[in-house]
Order: sequence, then C-alpha cells, then structure tokens
Amino acid sequence: MGRVTERRRVLRIRGGAVTTRPDTLVAEEPLEIRLNGRPIAITMRTPGDDFALAAGFLVSEGVLAAASDVRNIVYCAGATDDGRNTYNVVDVQLAPGVAVPDISLERNVYTTSSCGLCGKASLDAVRTTARFPIADAPPLRIAPGLLSLLPERLRAAQRVFDSTGGLHAAALFTEDGELLDVREDVGRHNAVDKLVGRALREGLLPLGRAVLLVSGRASFELAQKAVMAGIPVLAAVSAPSSLAVDLAAETGLTLVGFLRGPDMNVYAGEHRIAL
Amino acid sequence: MGRVTERRRVLRIRGGAVTTRPDTLVAEEPLEIRLNGRPIAITMRTPGDDFALAAGFLVSEGVLAAASDVRNIVYCAGATDDGRNTYNVVDVQLAPGVAVPDISLERNVYTTSSCGLCGKASLDAVRTTARFPIADAPPLRIAPGLLSLLPERLRAAQRVFDSTGGLHAAALFTEDGELLDVREDVGRHNAVDKLVGRALREGLLPLGRAVLLVSGRASFELAQKAVMAGIPVLAAVSAPSSLAVDLAAETGLTLVGFLRGPDMNVYAGEHRIAL
Repeated sequence: MGRVTERRRVLRIRGGAVTTRPDTLVAEEPLEIRLNGRPIAITMRTPGDDFALAAGFLVSEGVLAAASDVRNIVYCAGATDDGRNTYNVVDVQLAPGVAVPDISLERNVYTTSSCGLCGKASLDAVRTTARFPIADAPPLRIAPGLLSLLPERLRAAQRVFDSTGGLHAAALFTEDGELLDVREDVGRHNAVDKLVGRALREGLLPLGRAVLLVSGRASFELAQKAVMAGIPVLAAVSAPSSLAVDLAAETGLTLVGFLRGPDMNVYAGEHRIAL
Repeated sequence: MGRVTERRRVLRIRGGAVTTRPDTLVAEEPLEIRLNGRPIAITMRTPGDDFALAAGFLVSEGVLAAASDVRNIVYCAGATDDGRNTYNVVDVQLAPGVAVPDISLERNVYTTSSCGLCGKASLDAVRTTARFPIADAPPLRIAPGLLSLLPERLRAAQRVFDSTGGLHAAALFTEDGELLDVREDVGRHNAVDKLVGRALREGLLPLGRAVLLVSGRASFELAQKAVMAGIPVLAAVSAPSSLAVDLAAETGLTLVGFLRGPDMNVYAGEHRIAL
C-alpha cells in the first residue's frame, strides 16, 4: 500500500553499450472511488494520498465543498474474493444532509443528453456545479517575477520525479510564492485532486489566495478543478487548450501558460498580473 | 467541425517586455462515443478523425477487431434541443452478429466488483479481452540504431505541435522505420485510438509488424492499447509506469522507454531488440 515507486530490471542502452540493472519506476494502480458505497469512478493513479484523491475528485464534481461534508473515508476491505484489502477501493461517506448527486460513472460527463454535447455545454456545466465563486477580495495581484520563481520551487520540492521521470506534479503556492503543498502522480488530474482533497480535509477551501502550478499542460479538466476549488490563478509550464482558456475567461480564472524562466503567456484574468 | 487549432488573444511576457497578440491553441472539445445508440464513453479530444477515434477506442475495449465488425459510423444529428449537429457525438453501429458487450460507462474499468481491484486484475482483464495474440512470426527484430531515428521522424511529421505546443503525438512505423501514420491530440490515449481506428478501417489489424511510438510517457492504458491492436513494440520518449511494464512482460510486448538519441531503456520483450 502506498508505494510511490517500484523497481524493475531494465536493459539500458547508452552510446551503444548495453547493461542490465534495476530501474526505479513510478507505481501505477487502479483506484475505485465509491460514494456512500456506490462505485462512481475508477482512475489509474500512483498509490498514496488516496483519501485526499477521492475527496478532491468529489470537490471537482461539485459534491464536496467543506470538510464537514464528509462523515468518513475508508478503504473497503473484503473487495476481493478472499476478503483481502487491496487498498485500491475507497469509499467516501457523506455527512447527514449532504445531497448525493446523480453522478455518472464517467469522468468528464458535464452535460446531459438533452442539451447536446459541445464545449459550451462543458463550460455551462462547470458554472452550474461550482460551489465557490472565484472571489479574491481584494483581488490577488502577483508579479511576473514572482511567478517565474515557482517552477523551480516546484522542482526542488519534488521527491520522486528525478528518480523515475514518470510523474506529473502539481503544487499550491501562497500569493507571496511560498510553497503550501506539492503532490505527484502518474496522472496529472490525480495530482491536482490530491492537493485539493488535502486542502478540503484541512478546512482550507475555497483556496481564494492560492496559485496552482502544474508541471505540464493546462487542459479543460485542470482548469475546471482550479475553478471548483475557488483557486484564482492556474499556471502551467506548458500549453493550455482552447477550452481551458474559454473556461478561465468565463469564470474569471487567471490562466498562465508556457511559464519558463522570466517568460510566460497570460491567456485570461490578466488583471491579477502586476505588470 | 474538425478544427485542430483555435486562435485566442494572449498577453505575452518576454524578458520583461509585455505585448498582446493572437496565439494558436490546440482545440479541445468533448466527444461522446455511442455503441449501437447507447452512450458508453465521453472523452475530451481534439476534433478530427472522430470516427477513427471511436473505432480505435472500441478496439481497445475488445469490441472491434476487423473493419467488417462495423456496419456504420455516423455523427448523431439532433443531439441538441434545436436539432443541430454538434459533431461531438459519434455512434458506432455494429455489423449483424457482432456481440454487444456490457461495457461500463467508465474508461479503464478492466475488472469486476467480484474480483477486487488491483494491478493484477487490470492485467487479467486485458488478457481475457485481447482479440489478437502478439504473434509476429518470424519475430520482429529491430536495431537500437533504427529505433533511435524514430522520434525525429515523428517530430518531422507533426503538423501542429510546433504551433501550439499542446499536443501529444503517436505514430506507427514499419519494422524498417518507415512512417505509416501519425496522429496528434490533446489527449495521449486519443492519439493512439485514432491511429488504431484508422488501421482497423483500412483492414490492417492486427498490426503485427508495426512499432508504436508515443511522444510522452507509457502508461498502462497506452500499453493496453498496443496489446489490443496486436502491436509488438511500444516505444516512448519518456518513462513507463510499473503497470505498463508488468503488462508488457505478461503479454510479450516489447516496451522501450526514454528513447532519446542513441540512448534507450528496454523494459520488456528484449528479444526483439537486435543488439
């Protein structure tokens, strides 16, 4: 349970020379997330922080907004024929009075069959399920020079990346650039879910003064997770997608892409960038 | 329909200088895949090759194995209230006699509740749904020097990456290193589904003499897609996960990672590497 890396034998070819040695790989295993006992999602994830991953996933889905919404989170024992606990099935039990939504089994189902399916419908669905406005008052203001320091701070905080090269990372920073938390996972969305779930459990939602940094690209799904956690600034080391930019523009999220050294692109919410 | 990139205004900060200009972004929109009219999956994808994406997805799920398994693939008109076709809903209609499986709505559900959920169950599920053995006879043999040429050939063939930086790429090569096909998508699994779907529709499955190259990491899901299409060699520019290596070892797939210039790691199936 919870092993972040595993060792495997590898044939290593370097400059024509061939050697055999053990190699460190990022661990990947399925996690089934249940809500009040009912399976609602399966994700391939790196074991560890599984309760936070489940909680953060449910924040993104609009089910959870505060630590008090959760009665309990447990690993389901007895999920195998022999009653063994695989530590790969997590049940989130809601507090009395918290509405159990009709969540589809499919991640990313942000529309109904009646409203058709298009980018606009995806944007609408986030707006209608959002539990917090992005309401940083006074507005968070962050200088490009401060933003440019964050990727290096993220890399310095990563414990696993250097040994496997197989992990996505996500980190939360204060508006002063102080690292609040960092998570890594074989899945980019899982790393963000783990951050958000840990914040939920510590009573920190909405994260109205935080900056979320991701090590790769900014997809719609990652922008949606920032919005659902009330985070005002999402910065990505690589490119955003069109729908991520559209969601940011519509919700007031500041979206920064290609954050590399002193250079960056601001795709939405530029009022928070102190030029 | 089918626009691979979109333009958005961006605030560009370079060395302290701030300019505003239009920027090219990779397009991202939801695609709902239906099987005989029943919704089975939604994926966030870059529009284009949608029929191939749907077909390739169903190869990965063990539903399709030959072009003749498909009666028709269509965009569903009338999915919106006003009857407009969003080109974001695709229905795959099976040929008479092809079994309609009980596919869960969730991608990556390769287990049942009765067998528990663990990496081993995921491996077992691929083995039981695989339609082709990886049966390259005589065994495909490929020299490291040839493999080392493929990433550059992939980059040369990419049409969109340079303009947006937001796309994952996947390519099929012959055992002689000749490029067969290349696809790009905001989602790494989608790029592979598009390749496999196109091959299915051209009657090329199983791809018993092909090498699949992906621009990023090799996850369980990508290894599974290679296995389901009968591809004997999967090469990745970056790291594999533990479960991808386990699946390769169990199915006989050759898995190469960190393919960079003349260097690479061979994680499984090294009998196909001509040293």
